[in-house]
Order: sequence, then structure tokens, then C-alpha cells
Amino acid sequence: MAESVTAEYVARVFEEVKNWGKWGNDDERGALNYITEKKRAAAAALVRDGVQLSCALDFPVEPSPDNPHPAQHMMVVAGDACCDPRAPGLQMSMDFIGISFHGMASSHIDALCHVFVGKQMYNGFPAEDVLSTGATRNSIMAAREGIAGRGVLLDIPRLRGVGWLELDDRITVDELEAAEKEQGVRVDEGDILLVATGRDARREKLGRWPAFEEGLAGLDPRCVPWLHERKIAVLGSDGISDMLPGLGLEDWMMPIHQCCLVAMGVHLLDNLDLGTLGAACAERNRWEFFFSVSPLRIDGGTGSPVNPLAIF
Amino acid sequence: MAESVTAEYVARVFEEVKNWGKWGNDDERGALNYITEKKRAAAAALVRDGVQLSCALDFPVEPSPDNPHPAQHMMVVAGDACCDPRAPGLQMSMDFIGISFHGMASSHIDALCHVFVGKQMYNGFPAEDVLSTGATRNSIMAAREGIAGRGVLLDIPRLRGVGWLELDDRITVDELEAAEKEQGVRVDEGDILLVATGRDARREKLGRWPAFEEGLAGLDPRCVPWLHERKIAVLGSDGISDMLPGLGLEDWMMPIHQCCLVAMGVHLLDNLDLGTLGAACAERNRWEFFFSVSPLRIDGGTGSPVNPLAIF
Amino acid sequence: MAESVTAEYVARVFEEVKNWGKWGNDDERGALNYITEKKRAAAAALVRDGVQLSCALDFPVEPSPDNPHPAQHMMVVAGDACCDPRAPGLQMSMDFIGISFHGMASSHIDALCHVFVGKQMYNGFPAEDVLSTGATRNSIMAAREGIAGRGVLLDIPRLRGVGWLELDDRITVDELEAAEKEQGVRVDEGDILLVATGRDARREKLGRWPAFEEGLAGLDPRCVPWLHERKIAVLGSDGISDMLPGLGLEDWMMPIHQCCLVAMGVHLLDNLDLGTLGAACAERNRWEFFFSVSPLRIDGGTGSPVNPLAIF
Amino acid sequence: MAESVTAEYVARVFEEVKNWGKWGNDDERGALNYITEKKRAAAAALVRDGVQLSCALDFPVEPSPDNPHPAQHMMVVAGDACCDPRAPGLQMSMDFIGISFHGMASSHIDALCHVFVGKQMYNGFPAEDVLSTGATRNSIMAAREGIAGRGVLLDIPRLRGVGWLELDDRITVDELEAAEKEQGVRVDEGDILLVATGRDARREKLGRWPAFEEGLAGLDPRCVPWLHERKIAVLGSDGISDMLPGLGLEDWMMPIHQCCLVAMGVHLLDNLDLGTLGAACAERNRWEFFFSVSPLRIDGGTGSPVNPLAIF
Repeated sequence: MAESVTAEYVARVFEEVKNWGKWGNDDERGALNYITEKKRAAAAALVRDGVQLSCALDFPVEPSPDNPHPAQHMMVVAGDACCDPRAPGLQMSMDFIGISFHGMASSHIDALCHVFVGKQMYNGFPAEDVLSTGATRNSIMAAREGIAGRGVLLDIPRLRGVGWLELDDRITVDELEAAEKEQGVRVDEGDILLVATGRDARREKLGRWPAFEEGLAGLDPRCVPWLHERKIAVLGSDGISDMLPGLGLEDWMMPIHQCCLVAMGVHLLDNLDLGTLGAACAERNRWEFFFSVSPLRIDGGTGSPVNPLAIF
Repeated sequence: MAESVTAEYVARVFEEVKNWGKWGNDDERGALNYITEKKRAAAAALVRDGVQLSCALDFPVEPSPDNPHPAQHMMVVAGDACCDPRAPGLQMSMDFIGISFHGMASSHIDALCHVFVGKQMYNGFPAEDVLSTGATRNSIMAAREGIAGRGVLLDIPRLRGVGWLELDDRITVDELEAAEKEQGVRVDEGDILLVATGRDARREKLGRWPAFEEGLAGLDPRCVPWLHERKIAVLGSDGISDMLPGLGLEDWMMPIHQCCLVAMGVHLLDNLDLGTLGAACAERNRWEFFFSVSPLRIDGGTGSPVNPLAIF
Repeated sequence: MAESVTAEYVARVFEEVKNWGKWGNDDERGALNYITEKKRAAAAALVRDGVQLSCALDFPVEPSPDNPHPAQHMMVVAGDACCDPRAPGLQMSMDFIGISFHGMASSHIDALCHVFVGKQMYNGFPAEDVLSTGATRNSIMAAREGIAGRGVLLDIPRLRGVGWLELDDRITVDELEAAEKEQGVRVDEGDILLVATGRDARREKLGRWPAFEEGLAGLDPRCVPWLHERKIAVLGSDGISDMLPGLGLEDWMMPIHQCCLVAMGVHLLDNLDLGTLGAACAERNRWEFFFSVSPLRIDGGTGSPVNPLAIF
Repeated sequence: MAESVTAEYVARVFEEVKNWGKWGNDDERGALNYITEKKRAAAAALVRDGVQLSCALDFPVEPSPDNPHPAQHMMVVAGDACCDPRAPGLQMSMDFIGISFHGMASSHIDALCHVFVGKQMYNGFPAEDVLSTGATRNSIMAAREGIAGRGVLLDIPRLRGVGWLELDDRITVDELEAAEKEQGVRVDEGDILLVATGRDARREKLGRWPAFEEGLAGLDPRCVPWLHERKIAVLGSDGISDMLPGLGLEDWMMPIHQCCLVAMGVHLLDNLDLGTLGAACAERNRWEFFFSVSPLRIDGGTGSPVNPLAIF
């Protein structure tokens, strides 16, 4: 951990953690392959009291400093005109939603085609495979059957005894391991790892902020080898796992995104709401749970808005 | 069951199965209240081999006879221009999706504000509460924490020994009970009941068709009291549960939608893909499973596109 | 002009300038009726050198302080995938645009259904005629054949000898008449009156600003009787004609919008680019010109994005 | 005219009519350069009685056989909820429109980047210049100041004495010249040429049809050299100028589009409504008029929905 984070360091790590070819040259599922049916069944066995909660933010229709491209929600027909022309005997309301979901206020999953390094995606597919008409490789359809398995939450503000991490804070491997120890849980092969930075609490207290400009706490790039060793299947955060604005490393603006999505084939969950989950874990002193994510089946999609569920 | 289906009959049933006030005058969750934490935990205990599958159709971007208002999927930036202006050191692709999800080619959940009878919604809220700016009552936010519990599939084509039901076929209470018996399962309080009509198989064989014009198999309106007695939490189908074009009863164009959503407060899952699920059930001779649905958290929304998951 | 602007004053003026019934009880065109064919032909005769210019801002796709709901522009197929599936022998690109055009960065026309006073529209139609499915009265279809006639520009910053009006500046009747005199033009029946505040110049120099919060120069409400006397057909501005944030008069937040659209039936052109036009007028010392606006034919629409043209 | 239309013929004509470099190597306006200010002034002088009419179809929100991707029109706020949160003292309605405008039911203009031949656009720019983020060359911004000049209508059904051309009819050079003679007008340099096929009349009588499947009358490819000789600035039609489904020439599916947009730099107006215009011309026995088109200023756009105006 003493090694300093340079572009050369990240470039070397990127090569070291590559899972390209590990699950075949045509594989598009990447680390989702770590979630075996056996592991999924074991995760379901974690359910005891049946309490269920959402880890998503509300659909982000309001413009705000962290949401310059708000989503759309419009009624197609409301209660004032509640007759579908196709169905004269029926009174109904309908609406429309639209979203470019890779924003900073949207709980979403990144498909493996979302990021390129050197114009390549996970498993070596070229950026050109992501056409203006949709991704022909590594689209979110790789997760079309849904993702369900063991979720593990590492709550860093709790470990540090603070309400939230500051905007330029970075989370180290030592902290991840200290959180494991403190919480009595160990991140293991096939886990869906969630790392809390307290962003929800900060937002509630201080309001929304433009994360690209003002910053966002996240994982030190030196966590990448650790994530690789632990063989996580998915990585999620209430931030975007990466620190913003990053370390100023040319070509490595978001090393976590770049190493996870491109090298390791680890899908990412960005902008979750982990506050409720953290409280539920703390209440039970149990930091593992059944966790499911069901992306929309968007052919050629670069991800999906999601509402991930945790069940205790 | 001898009674014939008239407008008077449906109007009477509508009154008889009303759950208004049952869970309080402010309740917006309706029959979701039947899924207790205990039942959810029991449902999770159904998971054995960890096999998971999606019950959703692909995001419906293609116009077709059953999809006159196709959804949108457009790239915001593809591999040819893969540099986000906010992040010069990052190569990425992004896209946009848009959908008016209450279509016949979209797997979606109907919120309790989707349908009115006599300009009223579930629990007596007036249609006027569904404004052009969004529903202020009975929106999909009632299910924002997700829906998870025991799923039960009744496979009517299998019972009848046919590939699919014909377009004007209706499913009776006798058949529902015969399917229960044949399959060795009993629909019970808090269940998410899925009824297969073989629509997927028919579509695959004969192509898509305009269901409003040509028809769609569904439940006989006389099933409503049975659904009420069994206290199901959610009703889903590969069709829309209702028969199309309906029975020509003035004001009761979709009696299942009207009685479930408005009177009973039962959320509906429309246009699922139940073919894979049916095969998985048959293979195991087990017609119950853990089932989860996680609607997007759309404030004021009349439902959500969903990708429901079944786990065995 | 000595009378101070109170809510009572505006309410009285609103009644005094009402054109309801003037062109029949079913009329939806309002002051567009002032543009007779004869006047239009006379306007065309103003064309001498054939120089033509646009008075619109670019389609506002970028989020900015004055554009919290940016418009959409997305490619459906770009050069990287240039084969339309319907036309194998053809290489093409296509795109999509989407806009909620009543924003502060969008050059648009307001239909007469855009604003209500006391839940009534122009000619006394009730607000309820504007349904969640579209306006059934006073929609932009009233202008579906396009608007063309004599344009007259009154350039207030030029009159004052400043680059732009300050954010809390208001334009008086005296100034309008002084500008007429200075420019050698008289606003007359059927004219499309454009009033420049220098907003474009300010934006170019100081950047964009949130007009609802920080302010915007506009017409003093006491100009309303003058606008009525002059029988203008359309009113346009590089701002929105109204001052922002207004005068704090309860129920009269935007008296120009309210009196023009609702009482007088005068369509409004908001957020034009009048800088180029002003320069062209000054260069010729001619402040009248042929002017045309062609709204999209949106059935039930509350207006349209437009690109108005001036020809000298 | 005896030469038969083969792929070789079209390929040769394509080369012969190329205007690449004619207005400079950086030119993106193409044949719009033919509309000089002098010609525009002369066109304005054609206005006599001041009658004005629209040549556009209504905004195509309804799905139909010729409109598989209907446009969107949704209210953001209607009369039932008519208070903008930003403006408590104001009652208003607002809406949203969205459109992928290159459809068969949308009156639109094609930018010169809309079509490629051999992956090249007008003036030799490569298809790669049309990125997934927008066209960097030959976008509709080339026409951002609007298009206005002399419009000439050639009404072929009138010439033939029929209500409309049949779906597989093609218009020849002889017919264009016969129409000129019959109508007493000559197509000349800088003209906006409109060719009527009677599509509106057929649609009104027989309903809409899927033009790509069933056909559409248009210009014989052998008209291209004639269009080039006459130096038209813009070509418009109530169809799409091209015949559909075309002549089955590999790589030359739409020779008019390909030769006009790519070789000659002639912008196209597709799916106009020319019935009203034809009647107005016939009534006056005058087939020339002032004509203006004002595309939205869409940076990077491949065209724009438009509402072209003719004034007599």
C-alpha cells in the first residue's frame, strides 16, 4: 500500500487484474460468473426475518446540481381525461418515463460496455462494437436474467465514527479490511460488495452538490488488486465507487470504473441509497443479506436504471 | 359458476370484493399488505438449487402489431465518440431509454392508480388525485421497497394439453382449481399468482398480433371472487389477465383490471414471459418459487417497467 | 403613467383590454386576426435587398442555469452504422429531438392556452379544456398556417445607449414611444412587435443566469393598455416580455403574459435572439421588415419551438 | 431518356451531377447557395394578395401504417394542475414534444448529412463525421438562417388528369416539362421545386399505407440530370421525391435522395401537404409563390421537422 498512485501504477494494475479469456473468449458476463447457483442458494438462506428494503434513489426527475440531465416523467393521460380511446369502457391513467441513466442522481447498473480503456472493453472487444444503434457486445443483456446473491455492506463512515466521508476522502484497503473485522463479515468470491460513503447523509444535511466539480469520496485505486483477489461479482456504492474528480492521472480518470468494468468484468452499481440498508444491518449487527438487482432487458443497452432489493 | 357474466354481475362482484378501508383509510398498498415478513421469509426458504430466471420480455423498441407505441433506446454516445466531455481521461458509452410502459409488448406492473371505476381508485380516492403532473395517491411508490414473496404459476395450456390458449379462450375457476390439483400447489394468502396462457408460445409460432383487435386469452370475470377469497397479493400473466376484447359489457371493458386494481387493491403484472418459467417448474415438478419484482421508484407513477425474477 | 402598479391596477387593465368575443365566441386566433392578407402583402413589399436572418437561439440541449430541463438531441443512427434496416441499399443517419419548449433557453411561441387567469383562457374558455391529453381549445393549431407580417423591432438598449438592460430594468410606455420616434417607425395594427432588452449581449458577456432567481428585464405592466391600443398581433422579446421575478403582485406574477395571452389573445414569442436583427436594422436604419414564424402543427399543443425569420 | 435505369447509369449520373467543391471545399450549404439575396427579393415580390398557407402535415403522434415510430406529445402540466411551482402566481399549461422526424408521416427537411454514398456525404466529407453525438459536417445548421425564395409547384396528377399517382408510378422528365408548359412556369436557378404526386388525396380517400412495403410514386432517376441543369436549390414533395420501394438497384435504393443530398447538395423536403397549395395555385393559375422553410437550429442535426409556408 506504500506504492504511490501514478498512471503507471494503474496501468500495471489494470493488466494484472484482467479476467479476459478467463470465462471464454466470447464471455460477456465477466465476474457475474462468480455467482454460482450454489452461492445464490446460500444467499437466499440468509433470509431470516423477511424484512425487505430498496437501495435505490427515487427516479431523478428534478434538475439539481448533481442532475443536470433530469429524467422525464410525464402523464400520457391523467384522471381528468381518463378514457383510453382503445377501451371506451375503461377509465385509466398512463404515463411515460425517459432517462439517460448514467447520471449522478440515478441508481443504475453499468454494463460492461459502458467504459473503454484504449478503445477496448471487457474481454478485449473493441469500442467499435458499441454502435450508435446499440452495443453489440457486453450490453446489459449479459445480466438479463437478473443478479441475485449475497450482498455485503462495508460501512466506512460507521468505521470512522463520522456521519459521512468528506468529498476528497479516499477509502483504503486497510479500511476495507478493518470494516470487515469490525462488522464481522468477510468479502468473498461471488459477493455483491456495497461500500457506503455516507453520501445520502451528507446530501440530506447539506443538500445536493455537483460531484464532478466539488468531489465525491470513493475507493483508492490501490483497492483494485484487493477487489480482484476477493473475486467480487459486483461492486456498488452510494457514490460511484470512484473518487471524483479523480487523481488527475491522464487516461485514468476513473480507475475503479476502468479496472472493474474493463479489466475484471465487474458490473458496477452507482448512486445507491445505502443509508437505510446500513441502519438495517446495524440494527441486526449482520452485514450480509440476500441482494437482488433486475436490470431492464435493454438489447444493446449500456446499463439500466435499477431498484436493488436487500432482504434480511 | 352458472351465473352468466352481465354488467350487473360484475358491478355486484366489484362491490363484494372491495378491500377499501381494510388496511386503513390512507392505505395505498392494498393487497401487498398480505405479504408479511414471515411469508417473505418462507418464500425465500423455497430456494433450493439457486437457479434464477427472468420473467420479462425484452425492452420493446420495435414497432409491431402489438406495440404501436414502441419504446425508445438511443445512444447518447457510442464507441465512435467515446469521450465524455466531463471526463477527458475516460472513454465511455451512454444511452437513453424512454417508455410509455402500459403497452401490450412491455412487461410492467400496474400501480393502483392505473385504473378507475366510476372515477374512483382503490380505497376510494378520486380520479382527480391523478393529476397531469403525476398521481398524488396510489402511485407505484406504494411498492417502492420492492415486492418479494412466494410466486405460484398456474399453467393453463399445460393443463389443457395445448401449446397455447386460443385468442377467445377464457380461464374459469374450475380450471384454476384443476391446475392447482394437477400441479400440486395451492394458491394462498399473500401469493403472487401467475397465470400462463401460452401467449409467448403463440407469438413465437404465429408472430405478434394486435391484441385489442384480434383478442387475447384471459381470466373469466367469474374468477374475481376466487382471487379475493384466496387473498392473493399480486396477479400476473403473460397476457394482461383480462380477456381481450372483453365481453362487451359497457363500463366493464376489463373486469379483472377493474376489480383487482380498484376494488381489491391487487397490483397486476402484465405481459410477462412465462414460457421459461413454466419449463423450469415442469422440470422440477414444483410450481412455487421465490419471486421478486422491483419497480423503479417513480414518484407519481402509474406503474413501472419491470424485470421480475424467479428463483428456485 | 403615474398610477402605481398594484394587483388592483393589473386586474382592472386585464378587464379593460379583453378582446373576448371580438372575433366571435369560438375564435381561437385572437389578435392574429389583425394580420389581414392586405397587411401581409404590404409586409412582403418591405423586402428590398433579400437579406434573411434567423431570430432563434440554437436548440437548447445543454443544461445551464437558464435551462434546467435541457432539450434532447440523440442520434438514432450515425455514420458508424449507416444502414437503415428498411433500406439495405441506403446509407443514412437519423436523429431524435425532444423538448419541453417553454423554457428560458428555447425560442418558442406561446399558444393562447399556455396561461390562465382565474382558470380561464382567451375568449373565456375554461382551463379544464386543456386536458392531460392536450388542449382542446386555443392550441397552437390556431396558428397552423404560420404567421407572417410586418415585424417591428424596438431596441431599448440602443435607445438608452447601453449594451443591455439590467436585470431589474423595466421598459415604460414612454420608452417604447421614444424608441419609435428615434427609430422612425410606428407600431401599428397587425404588427409583430419585437422588443429588445439586450439579453443576448449580456449572456455573451457575463454568461447565462437563472432568470427566475436573478431577474430579467421586461415591459412594465403599464405598457399593456398601449399594446392594446396599438392592436399588435404578436409580441416577442429576447427575454419573455415580462419582467422577472415580477413585481410580487399576488396572482399577477407575469402580467404581460397574462394580459396578452388571456385578455387580448396576443401570441408571445419568448427567448428570441434579437442581436443580429438589431444590427441589421441599424445598418439599414430601417426597423420594419418582413417577419415569419411557422409553428409545428401540434394538435393540442401549448406552443411550439420556432425559428422566426426576418427578411429585409 | 431512352437509356434504361441500371445501377451503372445511376452511378454515372451521380458522378456527373456532383457539385463537390463548386462552392469551396468547406461548403456545407450546397445548392442553397443558388438562392441569392436578389432571387429572394424577387421571390418576395411575387406576393400579391397576401394569402398564406402551410405545406406541412400535422405533428404525427398517432401510430399508423406509415408511421411506425409515432412522435410524442405529452402534457407536462395541464389545466387540472395549472400552477408552475416556479411561479405561484401564475396558472399555466406546458407540454413536451419528441420526434425522430425522418419518418414517412412527418413533414421534414433532410440535412446534407442525412444520406451517404460510399460512406461519403456532400462535398466529400466522410460518414465518420456524423458521430453518435451529432453531425460535425453538413448538419441542418447549414440552413439555420432559414430558407426562403421562389417556390414552384409542378402538379403531376393535375397534368395527368387523375386524383393521384398510383403507388408504382414514376414521374419522367417529359412530364416535368409538360407540367411546366401546361402551368406556364419554368423551373430555374435557385428555385425551391415542389412536385405533387397526389399522396394527400390518396391518403384521404384510401387511408394511410406503409410506403416502404406498398410503394410510393416519385421521380424517375433519369430526372436527376434535369434537376441538376435547372440548378434547383431545394426539392420537395408530398412523397419523398424518390419512388418506393425503388427499382431494386443494389446500392441505389433512393437515387433521388442519393444524388440530390450527396452529389448535388440539394436539401430535400419530405412528406409535405401539397393539396391545399395545389388548389391555391390552380385557383390563381399561378404556380410560383414566395416559399419559406425555417428548420430548428439543431446543432449536429440531420434535419428538422418543419412547417413550410407559401404566400401568394
